[in-house]
Amino acid sequence: MRPMVDIFPIAHWLQNYQRSIFISDLMAGIIVAIMLVPQGMAYAFLAGLPPQYGLYASILPLMLYALLGSSRSLAVGPVAIASLMVGSTIAQFAEQGTDAYINAAVNLSLLVGVILLILRALNLGSIVNYMSHSVISGFTSAAALLIAISQIKNFSGLDIPRSAPIWESFGYLFDHLTAINPATLLVGLTSVFVLWFTKTKLCCGLEAMRVPTWIAQPVCKAGPMFAVLVGSIIVWGGELDITHNVTTVGMIPTGLPELFTIQLDLMLWQQLFMPALLIALIGFLESVSVGTVLASKRRERIDPSKELIALGIANLGSAMSGTYPVAGGFGRSMVNHSAGAQTTVASMISAFLVLLSLLFLTPLFYYLPKATLGAVIVMAVIPLIDFSSFRQCWKFNKADALTLLATFILVLIFGVELGILCGIGISIALLLYRSSQPHIAVVGRVGSSEHFRNIERHDVTTYNNTLALRIDESLYFANTRYVEEYILKQCAGHSNLQHIVLICNAVNFIDASALETLENLVLKLRDEGITLHLAEVKGPVMDQLLNTTFVDHLGEGKVFFTTDEAMRELSENERYPVNNRSA
Amino acid sequence: MRPMVDIFPIAHWLQNYQRSIFISDLMAGIIVAIMLVPQGMAYAFLAGLPPQYGLYASILPLMLYALLGSSRSLAVGPVAIASLMVGSTIAQFAEQGTDAYINAAVNLSLLVGVILLILRALNLGSIVNYMSHSVISGFTSAAALLIAISQIKNFSGLDIPRSAPIWESFGYLFDHLTAINPATLLVGLTSVFVLWFTKTKLCCGLEAMRVPTWIAQPVCKAGPMFAVLVGSIIVWGGELDITHNVTTVGMIPTGLPELFTIQLDLMLWQQLFMPALLIALIGFLESVSVGTVLASKRRERIDPSKELIALGIANLGSAMSGTYPVAGGFGRSMVNHSAGAQTTVASMISAFLVLLSLLFLTPLFYYLPKATLGAVIVMAVIPLIDFSSFRQCWKFNKADALTLLATFILVLIFGVELGILCGIGISIALLLYRSSQPHIAVVGRVGSSEHFRNIERHDVTTYNNTLALRIDESLYFANTRYVEEYILKQCAGHSNLQHIVLICNAVNFIDASALETLENLVLKLRDEGITLHLAEVKGPVMDQLLNTTFVDHLGEGKVFFTTDEAMRELSENERYPVNNRSA
Repeated sequence: MRPMVDIFPIAHWLQNYQRSIFISDLMAGIIVAIMLVPQGMAYAFLAGLPPQYGLYASILPLMLYALLGSSRSLAVGPVAIASLMVGSTIAQFAEQGTDAYINAAVNLSLLVGVILLILRALNLGSIVNYMSHSVISGFTSAAALLIAISQIKNFSGLDIPRSAPIWESFGYLFDHLTAINPATLLVGLTSVFVLWFTKTKLCCGLEAMRVPTWIAQPVCKAGPMFAVLVGSIIVWGGELDITHNVTTVGMIPTGLPELFTIQLDLMLWQQLFMPALLIALIGFLESVSVGTVLASKRRERIDPSKELIALGIANLGSAMSGTYPVAGGFGRSMVNHSAGAQTTVASMISAFLVLLSLLFLTPLFYYLPKATLGAVIVMAVIPLIDFSSFRQCWKFNKADALTLLATFILVLIFGVELGILCGIGISIALLLYRSSQPHIAVVGRVGSSEHFRNIERHDVTTYNNTLALRIDESLYFANTRYVEEYILKQCAGHSNLQHIVLICNAVNFIDASALETLENLVLKLRDEGITLHLAEVKGPVMDQLLNTTFVDHLGEGKVFFTTDEAMRELSENERYPVNNRSA
Repeated sequence: MRPMVDIFPIAHWLQNYQRSIFISDLMAGIIVAIMLVPQGMAYAFLAGLPPQYGLYASILPLMLYALLGSSRSLAVGPVAIASLMVGSTIAQFAEQGTDAYINAAVNLSLLVGVILLILRALNLGSIVNYMSHSVISGFTSAAALLIAISQIKNFSGLDIPRSAPIWESFGYLFDHLTAINPATLLVGLTSVFVLWFTKTKLCCGLEAMRVPTWIAQPVCKAGPMFAVLVGSIIVWGGELDITHNVTTVGMIPTGLPELFTIQLDLMLWQQLFMPALLIALIGFLESVSVGTVLASKRRERIDPSKELIALGIANLGSAMSGTYPVAGGFGRSMVNHSAGAQTTVASMISAFLVLLSLLFLTPLFYYLPKATLGAVIVMAVIPLIDFSSFRQCWKFNKADALTLLATFILVLIFGVELGILCGIGISIALLLYRSSQPHIAVVGRVGSSEHFRNIERHDVTTYNNTLALRIDESLYFANTRYVEEYILKQCAGHSNLQHIVLICNAVNFIDASALETLENLVLKLRDEGITLHLAEVKGPVMDQLLNTTFVDHLGEGKVFFTTDEAMRELSENERYPVNNRSA
């Protein structure tokens, strides 16, 4: 049997657990809980679910992750982008507010969990590598923008159709400018101000006043809670919900979620599969990225396979709690870390506090205006909209920058799911395109040395009767015709050519298509009176070739050990080597 | 204006056209026409169309190709695999025998033509490179097998449902063994015998008897025509169509197709797009492959872009003639070439003869049994079933062989369209997988030279404090995390490590994801007290890096011109170099 610490990283941390570590964890746990309660409710709205479902997703999943996760300070729970994806996915099958809608969310959690565990079982976690930095960056910015725009509804009190594309949302807004509820807008803007003030001015102020950290830190991170308090008090005090129609959260059922109420719906799984895969991959990618950054600050590393398991089980926990998928969030994890979380005990404390608030605090949220939750969402996603990343990309690599831009635009137009799929498609198409055009260099001898270098970059000597070509890539179906055409074109450009030497020191394998092309090439060159030779063939490739009749097929062509050897033998009757630069 | 010969290769050939060339062309034209008439009718049945549609597809498209094609001896017209694909595509939308069915076939021709011309316009002909040799080979064998199996119907006289998967076809056959029409079976087997006899025995016999080539050659290639004659005579003589229910071709309308009767149906185009793309690509690939083989026998080359235009226009010609898509076929092209075709005038002659037979010979086909056409099809596709290719592939490269086998099985199970798409998907997934695991070598100094080689293959000297790694691939999103993990793992395996040198002589570009990973790697290594250096960075990559802050970001890390320089500087305080083999 494997030792406990192998399965449960927390067992390892608890071996040296001390009072001081617990106090750090307690502090971080409290601070995260203060953020988590309002954010959880807000993100549940974003996913189209009643607010308590965000809190349900913040108890059992956190505890399960705390047991299994390899990151000490990753804060798992409802996150903005996954909430948007859940909302836009389920809106296609079910009406918001119905049992079918909630059931779809639960099935989605189950599917996300199962997919993550399958990826672990098949050792396929590296599949996320195919989502390039540019695609993720364009996707995140666009999703954050979509989330921010979706909150126009909560700020204006207008009934903007949920699934409308952004231009229709704006169209609706401009058509109904006079119908905007000014009280709602005022509450929303006030909440934004409270959030901004707490995050910037208040923090600096407390620091300047040298307030002790254990007081200053919770106060700084309590912006969402302050906004909730201020918003609720304004509505309650001014009876705005009655006199001015400001929409509030209203009655939240007190108590814990019922466990194990899942209705499996395998037909639904077919429709949910692709969204679930994307939610799983993006959630996993975000969690691992954040986890890696935080771990490296402690000079530790996280284990991606353990993360697959931990996030998979956490999502099964979501399904068990009857709520929607979770992931490791960027914002709260940063707060958790900087608040001093030493182990995942901090997350357990957060989960426990959310549980307490579900048991005792829900009546307090009756007057909480939705506009305030909208403000919490907008302030949380604005940092995700990142234009500087495009600027940097553009300077470095235009193709990446254009992929980023295309993904950004496609997500805005077609929505998160189709948008990111198109983005991934574009980046893979670019990769295939690049792989179909390998770098090939005509090389010549450097001085009288044994070195051969690209004639375009170095002052080298070439020969009239022998052409040496270095192929800087493995040979396979996607590039083999390009290589063939390149060689035939070179032949057309050189009269008196008798030999071509292919330098294969960068060829790590040759596939069947390439072998066939090479065999045909030998024949075509022979028709023109040119012999094909190979040089510097790597061991494994040579073994491969010896399994076939290729070497016989070369006829007079040889396989040379070094390019130097090849050139000395083939051009020995060549009395006047041609100096490339002077030719 | 571009000269005529640039647009019409035939104009070039006609400049030196002589009587002797014409006689060769005439001979080849006649021989191909003798094959083409029965094959055309048979393939039309395969596509689910009345037999005359195969002849319609053998007139205008051939003439158009003859004007525009760059291959002297490619024989364009109805081909087996495209016919199968047309049949299985349209069966999904329309009932055989209806106007809707024929209209779908015509729209498919139009779409194939348009797609080929668009590929030319966008210079995207190289897209066929993504269909690897293994995929095409597996696909062709499976399609040929499917075609052969589909003829059980014509041989047995049983009414096997057309779109049934193969196991159901066999099931139907075994359930109805007693219902097999013995007369039909007999006619079919007789036809097979005639075809086999003509192709093998008769040919050798004539050769042995020293019959002049101009007689022997047409006779040898007239197998299908002989089979048609024998089959028709048996049915007519024995009145088998009446007494034994042998199905015959029956009445074929005499006369030419009506031109320009296309009913555009853009809604249908959405459904037809993917099949049309596949038919276009496979047709183009087969035509170019055959054309290249034939051209190289004359030491000529064909021009793939001209072929895209010529095949595109030929398919528009099919659409204009109200019939289904055409391509350059393997079998008839070989016959055309070996019969001595010198220019595409041969194809014009074939087309003219098909035209004549449509005008005058159709009544003769009244008694032609479908079983004979089935025999013509089966004998034409059997050579396409190629198991030796799998054996060769298996010896050379297991992954290719498995791709071939998977494509073969998937085509048999899911049909041609989905099967080949899965095959292409598999080969691209393998390519992506390989590209995500680049070859990285730890290198050491060879003797006291300036050369550094893989420590696993050569006897080299390494240093305790400096690790030199050569990355044999460009760095991009799909492989960047693998490279990072490889390096971090190497660090864990070496204590006392102070420097890592990345040798980038095979790195042709770095994308934004890789740059970000490298920047993170610098920080992670710095945390462990290790400095990252680069060596042998190529010019274009260095230019790219200088556009960013990466070089500053390296801190104490340097970019060395050569590995030798790097190792001399970094390991200078290292008094005892470690010899790898003795370590």
